[in-house]
Amino acid sequence: MSEKRALNIGLIGYQFMGRAHSHAIKALHVFGDELPFRPVMRVICGRNEAAARKVADHYGWERVETSWENVVADPEIDVIDIVTPGDTHCPIAVAAAEAGKHVICEKPLALTGDEARRMHEAAVRNKVKHVVNFNYRQVPAVIHAHRLVTEGTIGDVCSFHGSYRQDWSMSPDVPFVWRFDEKVAGAGSMADNGSHIIDLARYLVGEFAEVTGQSTIFRPERVGADGKPKPVTTDDAAVFLARFRDGALGFFHTSRFCPGHKNGLQFEINGTKGSIRWDLERLNELEVFVDDGAAPGAEFQRIMVTEGGAHPYVGHWWPPGHILGWEHTFVHQLYALLKAIAEDGPTSPDFEDGLKCQLVIDALAEAEKSRGWVALK
Amino acid sequence: MSEKRALNIGLIGYQFMGRAHSHAIKALHVFGDELPFRPVMRVICGRNEAAARKVADHYGWERVETSWENVVADPEIDVIDIVTPGDTHCPIAVAAAEAGKHVICEKPLALTGDEARRMHEAAVRNKVKHVVNFNYRQVPAVIHAHRLVTEGTIGDVCSFHGSYRQDWSMSPDVPFVWRFDEKVAGAGSMADNGSHIIDLARYLVGEFAEVTGQSTIFRPERVGADGKPKPVTTDDAAVFLARFRDGALGFFHTSRFCPGHKNGLQFEINGTKGSIRWDLERLNELEVFVDDGAAPGAEFQRIMVTEGGAHPYVGHWWPPGHILGWEHTFVHQLYALLKAIAEDGPTSPDFEDGLKCQLVIDALAEAEKSRGWVALK
Amino acid sequence: MSEKRALNIGLIGYQFMGRAHSHAIKALHVFGDELPFRPVMRVICGRNEAAARKVADHYGWERVETSWENVVADPEIDVIDIVTPGDTHCPIAVAAAEAGKHVICEKPLALTGDEARRMHEAAVRNKVKHVVNFNYRQVPAVIHAHRLVTEGTIGDVCSFHGSYRQDWSMSPDVPFVWRFDEKVAGAGSMADNGSHIIDLARYLVGEFAEVTGQSTIFRPERVGADGKPKPVTTDDAAVFLARFRDGALGFFHTSRFCPGHKNGLQFEINGTKGSIRWDLERLNELEVFVDDGAAPGAEFQRIMVTEGGAHPYVGHWWPPGHILGWEHTFVHQLYALLKAIAEDGPTSPDFEDGLKCQLVIDALAEAEKSRGWVALK
Amino acid sequence: MSEKRALNIGLIGYQFMGRAHSHAIKALHVFGDELPFRPVMRVICGRNEAAARKVADHYGWERVETSWENVVADPEIDVIDIVTPGDTHCPIAVAAAEAGKHVICEKPLALTGDEARRMHEAAVRNKVKHVVNFNYRQVPAVIHAHRLVTEGTIGDVCSFHGSYRQDWSMSPDVPFVWRFDEKVAGAGSMADNGSHIIDLARYLVGEFAEVTGQSTIFRPERVGADGKPKPVTTDDAAVFLARFRDGALGFFHTSRFCPGHKNGLQFEINGTKGSIRWDLERLNELEVFVDDGAAPGAEFQRIMVTEGGAHPYVGHWWPPGHILGWEHTFVHQLYALLKAIAEDGPTSPDFEDGLKCQLVIDALAEAEKSRGWVALK
Repeated sequence: MSEKRALNIGLIGYQFMGRAHSHAIKALHVFGDELPFRPVMRVICGRNEAAARKVADHYGWERVETSWENVVADPEIDVIDIVTPGDTHCPIAVAAAEAGKHVICEKPLALTGDEARRMHEAAVRNKVKHVVNFNYRQVPAVIHAHRLVTEGTIGDVCSFHGSYRQDWSMSPDVPFVWRFDEKVAGAGSMADNGSHIIDLARYLVGEFAEVTGQSTIFRPERVGADGKPKPVTTDDAAVFLARFRDGALGFFHTSRFCPGHKNGLQFEINGTKGSIRWDLERLNELEVFVDDGAAPGAEFQRIMVTEGGAHPYVGHWWPPGHILGWEHTFVHQLYALLKAIAEDGPTSPDFEDGLKCQLVIDALAEAEKSRGWVALK
Repeated sequence: MSEKRALNIGLIGYQFMGRAHSHAIKALHVFGDELPFRPVMRVICGRNEAAARKVADHYGWERVETSWENVVADPEIDVIDIVTPGDTHCPIAVAAAEAGKHVICEKPLALTGDEARRMHEAAVRNKVKHVVNFNYRQVPAVIHAHRLVTEGTIGDVCSFHGSYRQDWSMSPDVPFVWRFDEKVAGAGSMADNGSHIIDLARYLVGEFAEVTGQSTIFRPERVGADGKPKPVTTDDAAVFLARFRDGALGFFHTSRFCPGHKNGLQFEINGTKGSIRWDLERLNELEVFVDDGAAPGAEFQRIMVTEGGAHPYVGHWWPPGHILGWEHTFVHQLYALLKAIAEDGPTSPDFEDGLKCQLVIDALAEAEKSRGWVALK
Repeated sequence: MSEKRALNIGLIGYQFMGRAHSHAIKALHVFGDELPFRPVMRVICGRNEAAARKVADHYGWERVETSWENVVADPEIDVIDIVTPGDTHCPIAVAAAEAGKHVICEKPLALTGDEARRMHEAAVRNKVKHVVNFNYRQVPAVIHAHRLVTEGTIGDVCSFHGSYRQDWSMSPDVPFVWRFDEKVAGAGSMADNGSHIIDLARYLVGEFAEVTGQSTIFRPERVGADGKPKPVTTDDAAVFLARFRDGALGFFHTSRFCPGHKNGLQFEINGTKGSIRWDLERLNELEVFVDDGAAPGAEFQRIMVTEGGAHPYVGHWWPPGHILGWEHTFVHQLYALLKAIAEDGPTSPDFEDGLKCQLVIDALAEAEKSRGWVALK
Repeated sequence: MSEKRALNIGLIGYQFMGRAHSHAIKALHVFGDELPFRPVMRVICGRNEAAARKVADHYGWERVETSWENVVADPEIDVIDIVTPGDTHCPIAVAAAEAGKHVICEKPLALTGDEARRMHEAAVRNKVKHVVNFNYRQVPAVIHAHRLVTEGTIGDVCSFHGSYRQDWSMSPDVPFVWRFDEKVAGAGSMADNGSHIIDLARYLVGEFAEVTGQSTIFRPERVGADGKPKPVTTDDAAVFLARFRDGALGFFHTSRFCPGHKNGLQFEINGTKGSIRWDLERLNELEVFVDDGAAPGAEFQRIMVTEGGAHPYVGHWWPPGHILGWEHTFVHQLYALLKAIAEDGPTSPDFEDGLKCQLVIDALAEAEKSRGWVALK
């Protein structure tokens, strides 16, 4: 590995997602000879220097910065990895692209379609690689689902059901944080959870033609850090419908008020020849039914998508039936970016995907106000 | 049993549902001493006399009629049981009520809200017992779900998801039948399948406040009995949203184009304290999560609702774990009607429930045309 | 149906199983024109006349007897149906056969192999039809499993796992009843539950070559009806191993001390080409894996065995996905007996099956004493 | 982290398990400040230097050795990690202990009880820390199961069922390798798979009192690398029974001939108050039933054991519902060893556990020969 060219990474942000990305960079070794670069954890950036330094110490970042502008301006850095809150994505990504750095950015890409468009345009204009980290596209089972759809195994898609259900914010004891403030977070479950299922729908079915929906706030007030009640202005839950360009129907549910669901991202796709369903809490498995007429009464079959050779990425890990975890998606996403840089190839999902997802979220906000269907252009 | 008063039943219709009702009447014996009447299978009515006679012979109906008017006019008959296609429900039920007969009618109650209202008014005016056979209200597990909601075990309802997915009409070899003709069937999956989930939503959550939705026809032409193609005018699938009066969100999917789902009626209810889900293909089971804080990470628990004493009806059948089938819902529904007649008590679901369900279906049709939300009055 | 020849049935016993058989006889109508006889519920027999009369009234038995000898001697009776406790099976069945009656007898067939052999010999000698009611052979999903094995779909059988787990006797509040007395019941869970899985193993895999095992009593004392403690002499649980004649390995668990299992009869069969598993609490489903190499990582597929045309019996009931219950096995078993009588064909499972099952149970008792393997002759 | 004392590791072996251990050592960073040492990947040892060097390059081992004796003799090394085939465990571990190194050794600990005893005695005598890597003890869900048993939540254990089913060796195309040679591998599925379930049974239930069992070879010949057929002398499958010292019954199945099972390690524990079950392919979940009488008909509840604070280790990873994979068990095991070294505390499972597991395997071999029960001393 020592002979490989170094690829210097600057990480902007250091909290939960900063740890996940740091962990993933260190795990890139599993790709062995196929890894095109030697990833170097050059600099981590955080406004709270002591906190950032702790992550640097634990994970082996070479140095700590408190100004992202410095990191972006550093000529040594090849890749900027953005894991800060959503309202900072746009300025950092645009500056990074202008500085000629490749960029990987956490989801959702931006707070609005306008921001996302600026980010996408900056990346294209500067010919840098750009990735939005909708990491569930990198689950082997989801990639297998994508292949079954694109190869026609389940026929033409008739319907898509996506839901993302959690229960972490139900308790009145959960304090007021920035996620409950529309000005900072944009939207609630519809953006945070919804962006994942909208992206999966686009990846697996195709572009949205029109949407309508409704959201709600079940707990309109929470106590802030100062002990005073504050109004919640982001949605706790939303339901929405879609028609896709190819005529398929879509329906969606995002909620943080679903007891018994810890991280319940699920989808089901029904096509003219078969169906597929998946559940993030059992992410190594895909349930598939293909109607070949052989077994009357047959319903879904469980596929353990852990078989190297047959399924992407898993050959680099463990033998069949030895499951992967949530974090592996980040390793796969980073590896895909490194390959795209080395081969000057396409990235997926890229900032255009981030933009198109944001446009669906914007259309949903508009549909909720107009109480009708809103077309995607 | 010989000392019990006879209750004479006239069955209008003799096909699939005629067989199911005949079977159920004969199974009422399981209620033993608690059965308030001796049900007598007096007359079965069908325009095709030979076919009706065959059912009569198999199941023990005393005689066969070819005119429903004669059955309704027969002073000996106490109960009229209507299992004919939807467009005949209204005239038969109104005539039966006018003749002072108790009426049980298959679902959906009518083709339109207007018809349903006339049926309901006739039944009320003539003080007869009236039941619409939304038989899934009689599944012990569904009754248990209802109890968990009404007793507050899962708190205030936040969201309801109902879907009814089948795959029987997917093949192009399925010929054109009346179900594909809007003039005869009213609607497709939205009425046939949708009425069940709308009724369950009303039973479990409460009244609908407003709805919107969209339906589609995936196979716009089918070959008729005459070998010629005919246009399909009823929906193959629909998705729709609701807001309930108490603020809960609802989302629904009905489809006959879902490979791998044979009879896939499912619901999930999320409340502020817990969640419930149910699947018709495993109708004896209820999955429940109540957040009592005891087990961190706890998700759903499976309840076998087969325990006599604890759950309604099942004590009349077999020991715990000995499952009931689909048909038992009809036995329970008939028993409930007999009790209501004997005690002059209420019936559930009654024609008012049938009417309210129809009004939701009508509102959905309107919403699809207006492409917006339609309020229920 | 009126033109069909009557087949007069005499039922000996009237408790839980008496009700189940009465219910099933009345449900035979679903077979319609294919039913070869008109079954007549001529007489029910019980030593407690009032209790027997109640069942007679509820289910429509024409008359009540208190002496089984009278029923057996009645020239009008064609079929004797035995649902009494195990220690009376032998005398009644032998007398019935000697009187030229067809016999259906509840399981286990007898208390010992010797008894079972006498019953079998009497039936053969008198050329009457004989059935032991191992009713789970009549579950459509189990019949489908049998077909998959016999047609070679899963290859040669390598292993069979059967378990029957319940929890009804765990509580110290469960009083001492005859089931806990070895002299009356023979054995505990090994006979009551074990006979079902031994029969299923014989049906699905073939004859046992040798067995070994061990049983245990977790609660050695229970309070009798007289308020006094009594020693429990039948096993609460047992584990045992088998080698089948064709070389397959078998392992078995029967227990009444398995919390969370209400009626947990389950098996799994592994063959050289595939596997099958089944669970009585979801009796309409079969889980099947056939290794055709098509889907890397594929595991089990769920089959809803409710599809008329493809699967035996279910075409007489409801459409696909409309599940059957526990009781339907009795209807199927009775129908099979009627057909065997009409066509003078074989019955299955017959008294020879009952005998062979008993010989395995006897061998297990011997193996437990000798603490080694015991061969079946 | 730079201020922490270095702990120098020497890894003996570099294949599948060598990669898994290397990966795990690098992932120890997730424990952050709680990590008592700075683990240093000092040397990797393999007879094939080029192959070992490749792993060294990929994962960052500082240097490569071809003689394990040199590594053991190196005064700089603190910990010897043994991931070589089973027949080399004993000499390496004994030498490492004699040299005063802490030792972690892959499972099964040795080929025979005698070897295992020598290893255990050497470790004790030299006062080094010793761990046998039965890594499934480090699954958070398994630790939670252990806690439920030891805290009495499910009462006294009545029965334990363990099975480990795979299908990787079924195809006749699988060539003859050392695993099929008794002289090299000791036993087949009974040792390789069986040692895991025997260890879990000891961990969760307690010591074995006596065992009996039988094994089989389904494919007695395989083609070797030289193209010639060779006799298979290790078992493809085994079934065995146990009685535990506390009276609980155990039954076990190990097999490589179970189509549809990729890595099917499963157990179920039944106690007087509740039951627990677990499946390695869904390793983050535990299914639990505790009979508190609250919900009649209640069966198992799914627990996602991913909740930091409530469950060991998981707080160092991701939020609730973000699942861990197979490899995380190695990280946990290594962390536990580091803590034991730092605090001079106990290790678990240690070489005594490895020895006791081996004694059960030896007893099973004896029982198969004697065709009876064999007591554990």
